Amino acid sequence: MNTDINFDFQRRERIGLIEAIWGADKSIDQLERVSEEVLSKKEVVFITRINKEKASSLLDKYVDAKFFEEANCLMIGENCNKLSTKKKVAIISGGSSDLAVTLEAKLSLEIYGISCQTFVDVGVAGLHRLFNEIEEINKYDVLIVCAGMEGALATVIGGLLPQPIIAVPVSVGYGVSKNGETALNSMLSSCAPGIAVMNIDNGYGAAMAALRILKRIC
Amino acid sequence: MNTDINFDFQRRERIGLIEAIWGADKSIDQLERVSEEVLSKKEVVFITRINKEKASSLLDKYVDAKFFEEANCLMIGENCNKLSTKKKVAIISGGSSDLAVTLEAKLSLEIYGISCQTFVDVGVAGLHRLFNEIEEINKYDVLIVCAGMEGALATVIGGLLPQPIIAVPVSVGYGVSKNGETALNSMLSSCAPGIAVMNIDNGYGAAMAALRILKRIC
Amino acid sequence: MNTDINFDFQRRERIGLIEAIWGADKSIDQLERVSEEVLSKKEVVFITRINKEKASSLLDKYVDAKFFEEANCLMIGENCNKLSTKKKVAIISGGSSDLAVTLEAKLSLEIYGISCQTFVDVGVAGLHRLFNEIEEINKYDVLIVCAGMEGALATVIGGLLPQPIIAVPVSVGYGVSKNGETALNSMLSSCAPGIAVMNIDNGYGAAMAALRILKRIC
Amino acid sequence: MNTDINFDFQRRERIGLIEAIWGADKSIDQLERVSEEVLSKKEVVFITRINKEKASSLLDKYVDAKFFEEANCLMIGENCNKLSTKKKVAIISGGSSDLAVTLEAKLSLEIYGISCQTFVDVGVAGLHRLFNEIEEINKYDVLIVCAGMEGALATVIGGLLPQPIIAVPVSVGYGVSKNGETALNSMLSSCAPGIAVMNIDNGYGAAMAALRILKRIC
Amino acid sequence: MNTDINFDFQRRERIGLIEAIWGADKSIDQLERVSEEVLSKKEVVFITRINKEKASSLLDKYVDAKFFEEANCLMIGENCNKLSTKKKVAIISGGSSDLAVTLEAKLSLEIYGISCQTFVDVGVAGLHRLFNEIEEINKYDVLIVCAGMEGALATVIGGLLPQPIIAVPVSVGYGVSKNGETALNSMLSSCAPGIAVMNIDNGYGAAMAALRILKRIC
Amino acid sequence: MNTDINFDFQRRERIGLIEAIWGADKSIDQLERVSEEVLSKKEVVFITRINKEKASSLLDKYVDAKFFEEANCLMIGENCNKLSTKKKVAIISGGSSDLAVTLEAKLSLEIYGISCQTFVDVGVAGLHRLFNEIEEINKYDVLIVCAGMEGALATVIGGLLPQPIIAVPVSVGYGVSKNGETALNSMLSSCAPGIAVMNIDNGYGAAMAALRILKRIC
Amino acid sequence: MNTDINFDFQRRERIGLIEAIWGADKSIDQLERVSEEVLSKKEVVFITRINKEKASSLLDKYVDAKFFEEANCLMIGENCNKLSTKKKVAIISGGSSDLAVTLEAKLSLEIYGISCQTFVDVGVAGLHRLFNEIEEINKYDVLIVCAGMEGALATVIGGLLPQPIIAVPVSVGYGVSKNGETALNSMLSSCAPGIAVMNIDNGYGAAMAALRILKRIC
Amino acid sequence: MNTDINFDFQRRERIGLIEAIWGADKSIDQLERVSEEVLSKKEVVFITRINKEKASSLLDKYVDAKFFEEANCLMIGENCNKLSTKKKVAIISGGSSDLAVTLEAKLSLEIYGISCQTFVDVGVAGLHRLFNEIEEINKYDVLIVCAGMEGALATVIGGLLPQPIIAVPVSVGYGVSKNGETALNSMLSSCAPGIAVMNIDNGYGAAMAALRILKRIC
Repeated sequence: MNTDINFDFQRRERIGLIEAIWGADKSIDQLERVSEEVLSKKEVVFITRINKEKASSLLDKYVDAKFFEEANCLMIGENCNKLSTKKKVAIISGGSSDLAVTLEAKLSLEIYGISCQTFVDVGVAGLHRLFNEIEEINKYDVLIVCAGMEGALATVIGGLLPQPIIAVPVSVGYGVSKNGETALNSMLSSCAPGIAVMNIDNGYGAAMAALRILKRIC
Repeated sequence: MNTDINFDFQRRERIGLIEAIWGADKSIDQLERVSEEVLSKKEVVFITRINKEKASSLLDKYVDAKFFEEANCLMIGENCNKLSTKKKVAIISGGSSDLAVTLEAKLSLEIYGISCQTFVDVGVAGLHRLFNEIEEINKYDVLIVCAGMEGALATVIGGLLPQPIIAVPVSVGYGVSKNGETALNSMLSSCAPGIAVMNIDNGYGAAMAALRILKRIC
Repeated sequence: MNTDINFDFQRRERIGLIEAIWGADKSIDQLERVSEEVLSKKEVVFITRINKEKASSLLDKYVDAKFFEEANCLMIGENCNKLSTKKKVAIISGGSSDLAVTLEAKLSLEIYGISCQTFVDVGVAGLHRLFNEIEEINKYDVLIVCAGMEGALATVIGGLLPQPIIAVPVSVGYGVSKNGETALNSMLSSCAPGIAVMNIDNGYGAAMAALRILKRIC
Repeated sequence: MNTDINFDFQRRERIGLIEAIWGADKSIDQLERVSEEVLSKKEVVFITRINKEKASSLLDKYVDAKFFEEANCLMIGENCNKLSTKKKVAIISGGSSDLAVTLEAKLSLEIYGISCQTFVDVGVAGLHRLFNEIEEINKYDVLIVCAGMEGALATVIGGLLPQPIIAVPVSVGYGVSKNGETALNSMLSSCAPGIAVMNIDNGYGAAMAALRILKRIC
Repeated sequence: MNTDINFDFQRRERIGLIEAIWGADKSIDQLERVSEEVLSKKEVVFITRINKEKASSLLDKYVDAKFFEEANCLMIGENCNKLSTKKKVAIISGGSSDLAVTLEAKLSLEIYGISCQTFVDVGVAGLHRLFNEIEEINKYDVLIVCAGMEGALATVIGGLLPQPIIAVPVSVGYGVSKNGETALNSMLSSCAPGIAVMNIDNGYGAAMAALRILKRIC
Repeated sequence: MNTDINFDFQRRERIGLIEAIWGADKSIDQLERVSEEVLSKKEVVFITRINKEKASSLLDKYVDAKFFEEANCLMIGENCNKLSTKKKVAIISGGSSDLAVTLEAKLSLEIYGISCQTFVDVGVAGLHRLFNEIEEINKYDVLIVCAGMEGALATVIGGLLPQPIIAVPVSVGYGVSKNGETALNSMLSSCAPGIAVMNIDNGYGAAMAALRILKRIC
Repeated sequence: MNTDINFDFQRRERIGLIEAIWGADKSIDQLERVSEEVLSKKEVVFITRINKEKASSLLDKYVDAKFFEEANCLMIGENCNKLSTKKKVAIISGGSSDLAVTLEAKLSLEIYGISCQTFVDVGVAGLHRLFNEIEEINKYDVLIVCAGMEGALATVIGGLLPQPIIAVPVSVGYGVSKNGETALNSMLSSCAPGIAVMNIDNGYGAAMAALRILKRIC
Repeated sequence: MNTDINFDFQRRERIGLIEAIWGADKSIDQLERVSEEVLSKKEVVFITRINKEKASSLLDKYVDAKFFEEANCLMIGENCNKLSTKKKVAIISGGSSDLAVTLEAKLSLEIYGISCQTFVDVGVAGLHRLFNEIEEINKYDVLIVCAGMEGALATVIGGLLPQPIIAVPVSVGYGVSKNGETALNSMLSSCAPGIAVMNIDNGYGAAMAALRILKRIC
């Protein structure tokens, strides 16, 4: 029995999502205990923001654990009810430094059976890189846009394409970038209409917002 | 010819949205000139954040202008291509002081032919008010949640219902409410997964985010 | 004689509380000297925010020292005048990552002979977890609520239960959580009436606020 | 029927408090409608942060309305279930400019039948003023401390007296006083143990926190 | 003799610029006295941030005073040494609400005989508006870019054109736009290389930065 | 009897200063009552931050009241124990917009019989203005430096002259000047050694800091 | 093929600049892959903010790689089209702690064949150091001014010299220096006219802004 | 010859102070070179904010180097012109965690021959500790007050004693203490008159401010 952990097993039933486990503030012991409990209920274990050291410990213990190092995520088992849909999500990022956030979003959607494509390093400083891909991006149903620094990519895409857009500020940059705060405020202040925004680096949250939409579309 | 205004007439074609006119920083003269130009192209004029004095001037000039005082919006003409859909939006607000933002969102969607229902003053301090309505709210396809102060309403709804949720922080309150900044940060930090957030008081933006979703659903 | 430390031995007499020793900014040498002095006056030594390394040094020196690692606290000796009361305190926390703060509060009260019960990981994203416990929580006389991220738990409990509520924002989360600042502002802005708030992570302070109340009740 | 106002009539039953009406962001029309509804349920109307103009309109309409101009509060009718207690509250303020907050707290408690005494302008710059009153203040059961600028009064009292202390930062001062933010942070950072803090200028909230305590004491 | 004003008459000789008079914080009396003194030295009077009321007073007194209401500027006399150059400046703005800042910059350069062209309301939400003008803008020697909200226009232009770019954040917008602070931080964090930034709304400063460049080019 | 005002009549005896009355947050009625009480004790009335309207009322009532409009100060009566000293203070300001703060400091010292000289509008943008006066300034015993915007004047003087320097940031400027916050931080971060800083616009406080020094010198 | 990196090879053609590679957030693997790709296109590799460990790895791999440790920069190959100009840039810094930023700017210009001279440690606390060099500095065509703490150096130089001035705030200092934020705000608020400002520590950006100017001058 | 360091050897002559060397941002190599240069001019080397590792290196090189570890300061040689005065300085601190700042101030004064006494850990939470010393403290000519958390000690002393008071906020505490920012703002907002404030942790600066005063007194 865990007295310090109270996993939300009813979340799937209530809102169709499973609880992801936030790995950053948990000890290895806590992660192992919660994994044990989740697996005993035949649920999939999905841990975000888990570092290499904690992951090693779980990989040693569970043979079917998979560690996605670039995404800082670890999974044990399979999600039992995947979404049956042809709808798909494009995840677009401004720079190669946004990779971890981009991959966290991608993985979080793929667990649910959603097909995702990443379009990396198409930032606004060289617009042709985006324009080369814009027709392709337009084929996707929901767009997740990850960008740090001034976050202008969200505005440019929001002005060009009609899809639902979920913007994720990324904590890259220095000085007044303020660990993603400027990208966040920039995206929230966007002059392009209807861009919805997530917390800084919240790739997982963006995936869940996309999933809420896709489940309604299907 | 307007040299200081450059209306985006191609926006409808590009992303399916018309340009709303931001009334707060424009003079009566600017508002009249841009209205003239928009109407001459047979487009609907939709002005947000317009005060009574500026509205009066436009009401005098255009017989079919309609002023929605509580929403601080003014419309002239009709939107030519409404969305044909049975999907509908619930707009939920924590307190009666959030009314203007709530109504701006509602009006912005109704222009596109979207059916909306408001659920006002169901804040978390008295949860039974929300629980009385939760079954009804669950019938809607997209949820817009407007709340000031600590903005906890978004988290509570996000934990209970599976729909796409667009949260709008509202600039009511005092002291550390900081004109909506605390509600904003609270919504972005929400422990409920997949809540997408707009700028403070941005009812119009929330409507456009909902519209992007609804157009994809239909 | 300590020339750099001036322990407040009269605090018990003045306000009925003993001085806890803040371990974070003190050297091992300072901690040992102040402990020596406190013990020589037959007072209990209670150190908060002490890390493992500093604790080891004191454990080596004092046989009756007890280190509470999860709470980052160390105690030597016993508090001489415990409170004689049947009143008890519930300490409720939103997530398993709030554990250290929760336990610091619990320990700080138990030193005074107060009976405490923790209710861990009952955050608002899955309200049923709280509702399962609410009747039990209602049996307690003072409620301490620890929560990070958006801190909505304090508002929800404040709307449901009549007891004195002391809210402690916790520095978990990332991005706009701002090391607990958003939870702090959220709790201070709460729409539930009469919630009193402590500094971020100040479990000890919450316990002392509860103690001030309990001493008045007895 | 009010569609934009949803008064929490069950609050008294749930937590023993009535809902106060926040007058600042409501129109005269909204205030009249909500008053009508509250009175029809035989509940007392208690409006905070109401200005003279809005008050006049209600005074014209309701013969038994009472306006407390210095406290910016208006009451219609009487609270039906007052607390039967001999316990009493001291409200202490640092400067004469804190008067409105002090009186809002006092009035909010008196509605519930609590006896209150104010100790005004006893700020720390001239400590003798506080020392002249400290013995008298010590006779009270709960202390509410209102102070602006650097808010040091809360710390000084917290170091001298054992009662529950509820600190209210006040938005007086200029420059780095930042409309009460410095007093707020100062009170939260207090080196005196167990001081619980409210939002800036929240005299009403402090009263409710005191009331939660007093109800437990009685 | 003015004892409270000490006009910098040697500035022209030192750095080739005249001192502009900041009208916002000066009384009519101060403005008249400083104008008198400046004119007596045969220098041009150039006042920025002057409102209509103060301007009227000066227009009454000086027959050759000219008030530029949209730019909030007033001039008396002519600048004696204009720059003899064919180089010219483009002033580009994101929205029609940036007009005052745009015109302040334009006027400040025209006083020195610099030819300026404004490109107004070519914001990033509708990129075609900018692309329609980009070839024309490329003919100018220095680019001043004025934008509020998220200020993405500076980045887009910085990625497309090779000229010196001076970005001016504008205090339009609401909520997290924070009176231009988000545009400022966004421009400073720009992923386009070599964009130099001015204080919020500082059209005059941008003009002077451009002038420093143009004087070096000539 | 004043129950809301508790004038610190013992301050002169304790620290040699009289209490100045902060006029900004007091009503005319409060100002009259406190003046009455102060005069009845044969003390001088000195009110800072008093506007024209409040001053008129006091001028009507007290024949020997003097209003210093540019300094926003009002005095009734004379200070009984002036300092007998030949030491004198220079008050130096960066721009003509700092006048009110400069004069508040000057007046606050003159009440105590201190001789003061102002050096106005000698800001760093035209260093020769300061260099013209530097030899004269060097004859004074304490230097008060008032500056807004980037506040560089304090650093320059601190690097050139050996006297005690009290820096007062002034709330002039716009955008990132942030109502004096940038000047404040700039002065606190000064690379010139030993510059002591006051709150924004606190001319009175600077005078009292100078007075504490002068009383020790005499 | 790099799927996570999309180097902007057309930047030289578009705006005459090459893309510098931001080394801070990239892994060694990413740096090697992007270097490989850049070199294969016969472009120069220029990496900024690269630490010793990452640099070692590249030095091992590429014989002609050069690491500039004090500037935290690494270069492989030569820039093919250097600017042919006699114009030159002075880089002036307030303290010896600004060295890394100063050298990053210098190196970034030298790659393009621009002649640069540094004037180090001429801060405002000892003005004579600057005055000793001012005549020499005046011979340069563009001035880059790097300063931390209160950043007053930019204002002083801006008041004395007529050239284009690009100010770079540096993150040295402590307390209210706020990692360069105070220097940044100070430079943006400068009372000297026409000072253009870069992000904190952005020596590279300052060089690019200078380059945009120099290319226009030649 | 040092090209990256430009020691201000004329400072003693100009303002009577020597330049202290800021050790935190300098490399061992820079510290050795600047020491060499300073010693060659027969000046005393005084380095602040130097850590143990850097100090060791200098101790190895210079036999007469003295490292004051608790103060993070290192000295080589003797100051040639000490102040000849009987005036003395009291340095008072709120908690034992303020020790480093306290000792930096003390050492910085003693170099100039000033007699100093520290009064440590007399914080406001236990006022009797201060009252026990207040008569003794009153014998000193200048008071330096170091305090973290809410910094109330400065206000209390400022209300009780007439001397010049220099307040130094200290970066101890957690949460809203914000690394000393709350103590800083609290001291600047103090209701006690004439308290002058230094940057956070700036013990050296406080000493120099005291020295400027003492040199004027002698």
